[in-house]
Amino acid sequence: MKLINFISLAERRKSYGLVTEKGIVDIGCRLAYQYADLKAVLAAEAVSSLQVFCDYPADYQSNEVCFLPVIDNPNKIFGVGMNYQEKRQEFDASSPAPTLFVRFPDSQTGHGDFVLKPEESNELDYEGELAIVIGKAGRNINQKEAMSYVAGYSCYMDGSVRDWQHSWFTAGKNWPKTGAFGPWLVTSDELPDPHDLAIETYLNGCKVQDARTSGMIHKIPALIEYISTFSALSAGDVILTGSPGGVGKKRTPPLFLQDGDTVEVYVEGIGTLRNAVRSAETYANR
Amino acid sequence: MKLINFISLAERRKSYGLVTEKGIVDIGCRLAYQYADLKAVLAAEAVSSLQVFCDYPADYQSNEVCFLPVIDNPNKIFGVGMNYQEKRQEFDASSPAPTLFVRFPDSQTGHGDFVLKPEESNELDYEGELAIVIGKAGRNINQKEAMSYVAGYSCYMDGSVRDWQHSWFTAGKNWPKTGAFGPWLVTSDELPDPHDLAIETYLNGCKVQDARTSGMIHKIPALIEYISTFSALSAGDVILTGSPGGVGKKRTPPLFLQDGDTVEVYVEGIGTLRNAVRSAETYANR
Repeated sequence: MKLINFISLAERRKSYGLVTEKGIVDIGCRLAYQYADLKAVLAAEAVSSLQVFCDYPADYQSNEVCFLPVIDNPNKIFGVGMNYQEKRQEFDASSPAPTLFVRFPDSQTGHGDFVLKPEESNELDYEGELAIVIGKAGRNINQKEAMSYVAGYSCYMDGSVRDWQHSWFTAGKNWPKTGAFGPWLVTSDELPDPHDLAIETYLNGCKVQDARTSGMIHKIPALIEYISTFSALSAGDVILTGSPGGVGKKRTPPLFLQDGDTVEVYVEGIGTLRNAVRSAETYANR
Repeated sequence: MKLINFISLAERRKSYGLVTEKGIVDIGCRLAYQYADLKAVLAAEAVSSLQVFCDYPADYQSNEVCFLPVIDNPNKIFGVGMNYQEKRQEFDASSPAPTLFVRFPDSQTGHGDFVLKPEESNELDYEGELAIVIGKAGRNINQKEAMSYVAGYSCYMDGSVRDWQHSWFTAGKNWPKTGAFGPWLVTSDELPDPHDLAIETYLNGCKVQDARTSGMIHKIPALIEYISTFSALSAGDVILTGSPGGVGKKRTPPLFLQDGDTVEVYVEGIGTLRNAVRSAETYANR
């Protein structure tokens, strides 16, 4: 199933639902009293019960909704840096431990919404990534069990403000509307091997990152084991598995996101996350 | 005023209140319908309205409550690393920008509760710090206005698992019960100059850190301006202003926290935060 988090444009109502070939089935309007949002569906381990809605007629077409970040209120978003060999070479990374940073939920944006280039920086960089969404709570999760904690997958554009990033990442990864998350959550049953997917990023239609998720250095089970050793995971938590090489910072000349650009992240089996870039100045005066 | 977040031991009920010379006045039992917790009091900018409770008789003595982290559910906890000259020398830090990391709320513990030494590490280090609690929401806060965003201050023991810390901090700063926060929030009106306070850490009664908050490199207004440039702050958010020199990692031989230790952080004008250290193994079998 493809699960989406959205606002219906006609009613200005936040909801969640299912994407079928016919369009979007609004599940929130039917189940909101049971599950307030997708995170609550995950926490109740009720994802498979949504299967019945696959046969419903569509309530909306995709141009009738505003896509929200797949999970707009995760308790924890962990970013993994330097998790592809080419990226490690570009940034001269050497630590054998996973490089981990934190994004706050209010740094996110949805598919089709804007990515915001800060006024204070001209170094907003793209990073196409596979995001995993945790489906149930756990601590000290063994690698062998880890995949059963994954509810599903999505694309992520982990926008990075390079001149604020430093080796501790925090200030580079938390500007509003720099983390695009979508378009939807593909449930894990539909992607039996998340380590064998094409992952591509396009800037204004030109391919700027081109890799396969098989190139991940710390694979998903290892990341879940490592993170859950020191911090409990819960339903709706997000792990960004890192970006391949080809980011703008390390090009000659550097290639950073500008007002008017379009950035797309394609992950095989999931789809394409597409966002227009606006400068904060243009956005404020819209 | 000294505001505390606690569980009453007799009723096992979470509440918040005021510490007076007579004891603890339970405000939560009187105002919970208006303000569910201290964060809600801050968000409503209602702190000064609590003044009336200063004349109430005490409901509890401090041995009748379990202290919780002053704010147990902040939206954001920012840690500042390398913010005192001696510490910078110890860690060979050179960046002029504030070093920032994130703690999740579930890594915290209250005054008198245990600090937990992970089973996976023998390098749990102490760091005594001044914590500031944000009183109202803001973004792009100017240094000149910044102090009006501070609700108050507390002590913090920013326990650091050194061998998991790396230059990105995340895995070193997020183990359960490693961030001790208390004993209470001293409202900002009572500490007109937070940059002129003695700050001391004691391990088993021996002074191991001894400094003044005047030694902070990035002062509180500068930190608030810097952070709020990239990420909105809201009521109840916490900024840990960094630890002076003298941490255990940089001693010869190193001095790390062990099961049975007592660690205390004293900040002038606030009081003493005291925690016993337990190893995770001992704690699990208690």
